[in-house]
Amino acid sequence: MLAPPLLDALIDRILDEDLAGGDLTTEACVDPSAEASGEAVARKPLVVCGGAVFRRVFERLDPAARFESLVADGALVEVGVVLWRVRGRAQALLSGERTALNLAQRMSGVATLTRRYVEALPSGSTTRIADTRKTTPGMRALERYAVRVGGAHNHRDSLGSAVMIKDNHITAAGGITRAIERARARAPHTSRIEVEVASLVELEEALSARADIIMLDNFTLADVHAAVARVRALAGARPLLEVSGGITLPRIAELATAGIDVISCGALTHSAPAADIALDLSL
Amino acid sequence: MLAPPLLDALIDRILDEDLAGGDLTTEACVDPSAEASGEAVARKPLVVCGGAVFRRVFERLDPAARFESLVADGALVEVGVVLWRVRGRAQALLSGERTALNLAQRMSGVATLTRRYVEALPSGSTTRIADTRKTTPGMRALERYAVRVGGAHNHRDSLGSAVMIKDNHITAAGGITRAIERARARAPHTSRIEVEVASLVELEEALSARADIIMLDNFTLADVHAAVARVRALAGARPLLEVSGGITLPRIAELATAGIDVISCGALTHSAPAADIALDLSL
Amino acid sequence: MLAPPLLDALIDRILDEDLAGGDLTTEACVDPSAEASGEAVARKPLVVCGGAVFRRVFERLDPAARFESLVADGALVEVGVVLWRVRGRAQALLSGERTALNLAQRMSGVATLTRRYVEALPSGSTTRIADTRKTTPGMRALERYAVRVGGAHNHRDSLGSAVMIKDNHITAAGGITRAIERARARAPHTSRIEVEVASLVELEEALSARADIIMLDNFTLADVHAAVARVRALAGARPLLEVSGGITLPRIAELATAGIDVISCGALTHSAPAADIALDLSL
Amino acid sequence: MLAPPLLDALIDRILDEDLAGGDLTTEACVDPSAEASGEAVARKPLVVCGGAVFRRVFERLDPAARFESLVADGALVEVGVVLWRVRGRAQALLSGERTALNLAQRMSGVATLTRRYVEALPSGSTTRIADTRKTTPGMRALERYAVRVGGAHNHRDSLGSAVMIKDNHITAAGGITRAIERARARAPHTSRIEVEVASLVELEEALSARADIIMLDNFTLADVHAAVARVRALAGARPLLEVSGGITLPRIAELATAGIDVISCGALTHSAPAADIALDLSL
Amino acid sequence: MLAPPLLDALIDRILDEDLAGGDLTTEACVDPSAEASGEAVARKPLVVCGGAVFRRVFERLDPAARFESLVADGALVEVGVVLWRVRGRAQALLSGERTALNLAQRMSGVATLTRRYVEALPSGSTTRIADTRKTTPGMRALERYAVRVGGAHNHRDSLGSAVMIKDNHITAAGGITRAIERARARAPHTSRIEVEVASLVELEEALSARADIIMLDNFTLADVHAAVARVRALAGARPLLEVSGGITLPRIAELATAGIDVISCGALTHSAPAADIALDLSL
Amino acid sequence: MLAPPLLDALIDRILDEDLAGGDLTTEACVDPSAEASGEAVARKPLVVCGGAVFRRVFERLDPAARFESLVADGALVEVGVVLWRVRGRAQALLSGERTALNLAQRMSGVATLTRRYVEALPSGSTTRIADTRKTTPGMRALERYAVRVGGAHNHRDSLGSAVMIKDNHITAAGGITRAIERARARAPHTSRIEVEVASLVELEEALSARADIIMLDNFTLADVHAAVARVRALAGARPLLEVSGGITLPRIAELATAGIDVISCGALTHSAPAADIALDLSL
Repeated sequence: MLAPPLLDALIDRILDEDLAGGDLTTEACVDPSAEASGEAVARKPLVVCGGAVFRRVFERLDPAARFESLVADGALVEVGVVLWRVRGRAQALLSGERTALNLAQRMSGVATLTRRYVEALPSGSTTRIADTRKTTPGMRALERYAVRVGGAHNHRDSLGSAVMIKDNHITAAGGITRAIERARARAPHTSRIEVEVASLVELEEALSARADIIMLDNFTLADVHAAVARVRALAGARPLLEVSGGITLPRIAELATAGIDVISCGALTHSAPAADIALDLSL
Repeated sequence: MLAPPLLDALIDRILDEDLAGGDLTTEACVDPSAEASGEAVARKPLVVCGGAVFRRVFERLDPAARFESLVADGALVEVGVVLWRVRGRAQALLSGERTALNLAQRMSGVATLTRRYVEALPSGSTTRIADTRKTTPGMRALERYAVRVGGAHNHRDSLGSAVMIKDNHITAAGGITRAIERARARAPHTSRIEVEVASLVELEEALSARADIIMLDNFTLADVHAAVARVRALAGARPLLEVSGGITLPRIAELATAGIDVISCGALTHSAPAADIALDLSL
Repeated sequence: MLAPPLLDALIDRILDEDLAGGDLTTEACVDPSAEASGEAVARKPLVVCGGAVFRRVFERLDPAARFESLVADGALVEVGVVLWRVRGRAQALLSGERTALNLAQRMSGVATLTRRYVEALPSGSTTRIADTRKTTPGMRALERYAVRVGGAHNHRDSLGSAVMIKDNHITAAGGITRAIERARARAPHTSRIEVEVASLVELEEALSARADIIMLDNFTLADVHAAVARVRALAGARPLLEVSGGITLPRIAELATAGIDVISCGALTHSAPAADIALDLSL
Repeated sequence: MLAPPLLDALIDRILDEDLAGGDLTTEACVDPSAEASGEAVARKPLVVCGGAVFRRVFERLDPAARFESLVADGALVEVGVVLWRVRGRAQALLSGERTALNLAQRMSGVATLTRRYVEALPSGSTTRIADTRKTTPGMRALERYAVRVGGAHNHRDSLGSAVMIKDNHITAAGGITRAIERARARAPHTSRIEVEVASLVELEEALSARADIIMLDNFTLADVHAAVARVRALAGARPLLEVSGGITLPRIAELATAGIDVISCGALTHSAPAADIALDLSL
Repeated sequence: MLAPPLLDALIDRILDEDLAGGDLTTEACVDPSAEASGEAVARKPLVVCGGAVFRRVFERLDPAARFESLVADGALVEVGVVLWRVRGRAQALLSGERTALNLAQRMSGVATLTRRYVEALPSGSTTRIADTRKTTPGMRALERYAVRVGGAHNHRDSLGSAVMIKDNHITAAGGITRAIERARARAPHTSRIEVEVASLVELEEALSARADIIMLDNFTLADVHAAVARVRALAGARPLLEVSGGITLPRIAELATAGIDVISCGALTHSAPAADIALDLSL
Repeated sequence: MLAPPLLDALIDRILDEDLAGGDLTTEACVDPSAEASGEAVARKPLVVCGGAVFRRVFERLDPAARFESLVADGALVEVGVVLWRVRGRAQALLSGERTALNLAQRMSGVATLTRRYVEALPSGSTTRIADTRKTTPGMRALERYAVRVGGAHNHRDSLGSAVMIKDNHITAAGGITRAIERARARAPHTSRIEVEVASLVELEEALSARADIIMLDNFTLADVHAAVARVRALAGARPLLEVSGGITLPRIAELATAGIDVISCGALTHSAPAADIALDLSL
C-alpha cells in the first residue's frame, strides 16, 4: 500500500497533530507501566480497510505492542464484529486511539462506499469503477488503497503518471489533434493518452488522433450509446471509453449496460462518510 | 488560521502528492509563458471557506499569481456565485487546480455542514455546537477553522491542550474523583477539567470532585433534563454540561432546549461531503 | 513526555548538527566492532532529569545498545552518584556522548533550578510554581517535562492551547471586558480565560467580566494583598490569581504567603545553567 | 551566520512549537487588518546579538513586515536602548513576539557572557577564548555566531569538521602516538590534529607524534607553565596549547598570562542566562 | 520540470550539505554588503541544461539576486560561450557557486550524453531513446528533465506510474500470461502493460496475452529482426517493441534500423560525466 | 560513514522517489507472503563499496530481511563474484532492487575510479589523492566514504569545516596576506588555512603569510618543481602543497614524483561511471 518508511512518516505527522504537547489526561491518570488491550469493533455494517495502518499507529507509540487481525481488509462485516485486537502499554493505547480510529474509519468509509458502487454494476459486467484525483489532501495513497479494497480500480496516481487531456489543455494546445500529438510526443511510452470530449464531433477527432482513452463529458445517455456503437464499429484496436462527472449510484447500471469501460467517480474519496468503528479498551 | 510558513509546509506536502513527477499533460500542451485566469464558482449552495488556502496553492506554483476574493469566508452563496478569481501562468493554474479545489471543497464542505447544525439551534440559544478531534488526518487546523467559519466552536485542539477524562481514564485512575484529582494536579491551571459520566450517580461524583465540564454519555433525554436541573440547582459556580456521541440534526434542538451548554459532534469533520466548487479557466 | 516518534525526530535533528559529516576522530581511532560501556555520573548535586532521552540518543546510533537507569527522574542526587549506564558499540557511545549529555544536562539543569523555586514555597503551601513559554527554542516539550520533574507545574503549552490576554490584546480589543468577551466567544470551552491586569482598578474590570485567571502585573506587595483579599471576598466561584515577571527566589515565599495561586517564572527555562553530568566510558 | 533557507527552516520549526494550534487570544482580540509597530528594548546592559533572526521571525509571519536595526550585533548597550524596530500586521507581531524574543534573548545572552570572558583577558593578549560543542541542542549555528559576536572564537563545528583525540580515543587506539597516526591518516589534510593530554609525560608523547594542538586536561598552573615552557623551547613549528574544563572567569587571566593559546569554555553556551530584552508594542 | 516549492526543497537540502556550518572563508574575506556578478561559461562543448536550477540556488541565498539566461536549455554550445549571468551579494555568489555548478554540470552532463545517443539515430528515425530508473538517487526529476532536454524521452517515472513486468515478476505470478492478467487487473487503465521477454517463444506468449509493450531482453540482432517482423505481421493494433540492456552508441543505429520503437538506456543517467562549466566571478 | 538515523533519512527520501505511488507490478504479480533471496553480483571488475547502504534499503522495506556480506567494502573483485546476499519478503526485494542498486553502483563506481587514481601513484609515494566538494548533490557523505574505500582521502567536508581561500576571496579581501589574516582570525584554530596561488610570486606571499596549505593553480610542471624546491628549502615547518584542476590519470605520477603532498580531483565523484552490479533474485 505504502512502503513502511513512507507510511511511518505519514503516521508520525498525524501523531504530531494530536500529541506534540503530550496527552495531559493519560499522563495524569494512567500508570506508565500499565498494560491494556483493545478491540476494534464495527458499530455499523462496513467494508473493513486499514488494519495495517491501525496497527502501525500503536507500534509507533509502543514498539512492543502486539496486534492481531481477525478480519482481512475487504471483508464486509456486520455490527459487532471484532476487526482487530491490540495489546500494549495502556498509555500508548489511549494516546493513539483517536489517530488510529480517524485513519481506519476514513479508509473503511471509502472502502464501504466504493463497494456500494461496485455492487451497482450489472452481474458479469466488465466495466470498471475508478477513483479520481479528488482525494483527501495528504491521504491519496491510503485512499487509493481503500478504493481497491472496496473492489474498484484506481485512475492515474498523479499528474506525472499519465496523460489526461482536458478542455483547457485542448484550448491551450490548439485543438484535440494537436493536444494529443503534443502529449504523445512528450509522455513516456508507458502512458496511455486520454482525452476528454464534449460531443460526438469531438469524439471523431479523438478517434482520428488515435487517443487511447476517451472520456465522454456530459454526454446524454443517447450520445453515450452512440459513442459506444461508433467505437465498437472500429476495425482493429479501439480506445477505452470512460465517463466521469455527476456519477450517482443509479447511473452505474445504465452506463455499464451501455458498454462504457470505465466510470470514474470523485465521490468515492471526497465525500465518503467515516465508517463507524469503536475501540473497546480493557485496562 | 495557520501561520504562513506552516500553511506553506502543508500545501507543499500536498502538492508533492500530485506533482512530484511533474504534470505530463500541462507540460506538453501549454506554453510556459501563457497566462490564464480562473474563477472558482459554487455549483451548489454552500458556505464559503478556504479562500486564503486556495490562493496560496497558486502562489506556491506561481509567486506572481494575483488573487481576488469576491466572497468572504463564512458567506452562504447560491449556485453560480463566483467566489475567487486567480490569474497567473496557465501552467500553474492547470497544475494547481485539483489541489486547490480539493482543499477548498473540503473546507467549504465542513463549513456548510456545520452551518446546518448551527441553524438547527433554537433562536437565541446560547448552546454551543463544537467539533471533536475526529478530524481528517493531517487537516486538523484547516478543519477547525472551517468549523468556526460555519458558526460553531472548537473543542480542545489536541491531547496536550486540555484535559478530557473518559471511561478508560477513570478505570485506570481508580474512580472519577481520583482521576479528576490526578488530572488537576498534572494539568496547566489554564485548562478546565472535563470528565465524561455515564449516569446520574456518576454525575454526582463529578460534581463532588468539582469537575469544570461534565460530558453526559448516552443519557436519555429524561436524564439530560435531570442533569441540567441538578446542576442549575447548585449554589455558586456550576460546571458546563456537554453532550456528545450520536448527535444528529433532529436532536440539536431538544438538547439545546434542555439546557445543554455544548453539543460536540464528530460528523462535522469526519463525514462532511465535499462542497461542489468548480474552477472555470480562461486561457 | 514526548511520543516516541516525535522524540526520535528531535534527537535525529540534533544528531545531524554534530554528525552530518561523520566523526573523524572516532572513525579513525576506534574499531567498529569494539564494545564499550559508560556511566553517567553527577559531578555536582542535581535533580536528575532526562534518562529516557539520554538512552534514546544511544539507541538511535546503536539499536542494540543496552541501557540501565539507576536513579529515577526527579531524584536529588549527590556528587558522584551514577545515574545511568549504557553499553553498546564503542563508536556509538563516543559519537553520541556530547549530544546525550547536552540534552541531559539541560533537562537536569531545568529540573534542578525548578526544585529550588519549589522548595522556596512555605511548607504546606498550595501555591503553584509554573513555567512560561520562555523556553529554549526547539526544546519546549523536554523543558516542560523537566519543570514537572522539578516539582513545578506547566503553564499553557502554546498560543493555541489556552487564552492569555495581555496589555496589547486589551488595547487592540478595546478594553478588558471586550477582550474577555471576544476571547470567550472564540476559545474552546475547555480553556480558561486568563487576563493580565496592571492595577486594582483593572482587577475590578476583570472580575466583572468573569475572568477565570487574573495575572497581576507589577503589583506591589501591598496591592497583591489587596487583590487577594478582594478576590477571597467574592461569593461563589473565584478566579485564580497569578503573578509573573521579575520573580526571584526570595519573593516566592512572600507571594505564596500572600495567597497567590500561581507564580510563573521564565527563568526556570530561559536561564537555568546546565547541570554537571559526566559520562565515564570504559572501553 | 546561517544561509537564508536554513535559517527559515529553523525558525519555522520553532514557530510550529508555539503556533501549530493557532493563537487563540490574538485571533480573538486583534483585527486581522490592524497594523502595529514594536521596539525591542534592552532591559539590562547586554551585548546585542540576533537582529537578523529577530527580523526573520516576523517576516515569516508577515512577509510585508518592515524591520529597522538601530544597533548592530556586537554593540554593548545600556538599559533602555532600542535595538530594533519592526512594523507589520498586529497579529503577526503579537503571535511572533515570544519566539522572536526567545531567540534574541538567548543569542544576546551568549554574546553578553562571552564578552565578559573576553574582557577578562589581559590587555594585548593573543589568547583565544573559544566555545565548545556544549551548545543548546538545535541551536549550534546561532550560538556559535553569538560567541563570535561576543568577541570569542569558535572551536570545531562538529565531529566531522576536525580531529580531537580524547582519552577514550587514546585508549581505543592503543596510545597517543597510535591515535594521532590513525587520525592523521584518516582526516582531511585541512584539519589540524588535536590531542588531549593528562600529564607532562603525555605531553612529550604528543609532541613526538607531532600533534598540531595539545589540550592540557586538568593541569595545575605549575604544569601549565611547564608545558608552555617546553613547547616554546621547540625548534621549528610548535603546536598550539589549549586548556579546557573548569574554566572560570578568574582563571582566564592567569591562563592567558601563562601563555596558553586557546581557552575553551562550555559555559559560554550551556549556561548563559537569557539577556533581558522586551518588545514594546504600539497598536 | 519540478514545481517551485519542490525544487526549493531539493536545493535547500543540497545547500545544507555544504553550508550547515556556514562558509568560513567567505564570511572572513568578503564584506557582507559587497556585490558581485558571475558568468557561467562552457569550458567544453556541451548541451546546456539547468538554467532555472542554477538561478534558484542563488535566489535561495540572496532573494534579490538577478539572473539572466543567455542560452536556452537544449542548446549545443561551444567552448567559451556564456550561458547564464547572475548578480547579487558577493557572499551569496561565492557560497552558492559549488552547489549551483554541481547541479548544472550534472544536468548538462546528462543532456550532453543524451544528445549523442539521439544523434546516433538514423535520419528520420521514429525510434525513441528513453531513460530508465537508473537515475542518481535524489535527482530523478532533474535528470529526467535533462534527458528530455537532450532530445530523448522518459520511461516511466517510478514503480507507481506504470507496469513493467520483469523475469522475477513472471516467475512469481506463474508465467507471462498470468502476470499480464494480474497486472492488467490491478493497474490503472491509464497505464500500458509492458513485459520483458527473453526469447521468441516468450514473445508469442506476450502477444497472446496482449501486452502493450514488449521488451526484448538480450536478443541477438537476428532475433530482434524476427521479433519486429512477427509484430509487424499482426493484424490490428501491435505492441511497441523496446530493447534495453547493454545499449552502446554503435548499437543505436542498427536497433533503430531494425524497427525497434524504444531503446532505453541506463547510461544516460547513471554514467554521464559532468559537463565542464565554470563560474567566472567579478567582484 | 553516516549515523544510522541520518542514513535512514537519506534512504527514505530516495525510496520516496520510486515508491510514493506504490509498485504496481510487484503488488499485482507477487504474493505478499512470498519470500525470496537475492545475490548482488559484480558484472565487471570493481572495487566494492556500499554493502551497509544496500542492506539498509531492504531493511527499510522489510525490517525482518536478513543480509549477509561476502566481500568487504574496499575489495577489488572480478566478474561474477557475489558481493552480498539478502533474503526477505519477495515484494520488498523487488521494490527495493533498483534503489539499492542505484546506491551501490554509484558508491562502487566512485570507489573503483578512485582506486585507479591511487594505483597511479608511484610505489611508496606519500602523496595523497583527495576528493573535492564536486560531489553528487545530496550524496556527499556516501561519496566521501566511497573515496576513502577506494584508497584516497577526503578534502574538507563543507564550506564550514575548513578554510580554502580562492582567487575571488583574495580579490575581495584585498590580497593574499590580508585574506589569510582575515581567515585565520575568523576560523576555528582546528582548521588549517589553505590558499590558492596562481604563480611563484603569489607562492612567496602565501609563504610570508604562513599559509598552512598552498594550492598551486594551473602551474606548469616546471613551476611545480620550483614550488616544491622552494618549500622544501624552508627552515622549520613547511606548508603542504596541493594541486587541483585538470587532474588526469597520466599526471598523477609526475605530480607525486615532483613532491606534491595532495592531488585533489573532482572527477572522482562528478564523473565516475556507475559500477556494474546486478541483483540475481530467486523466488
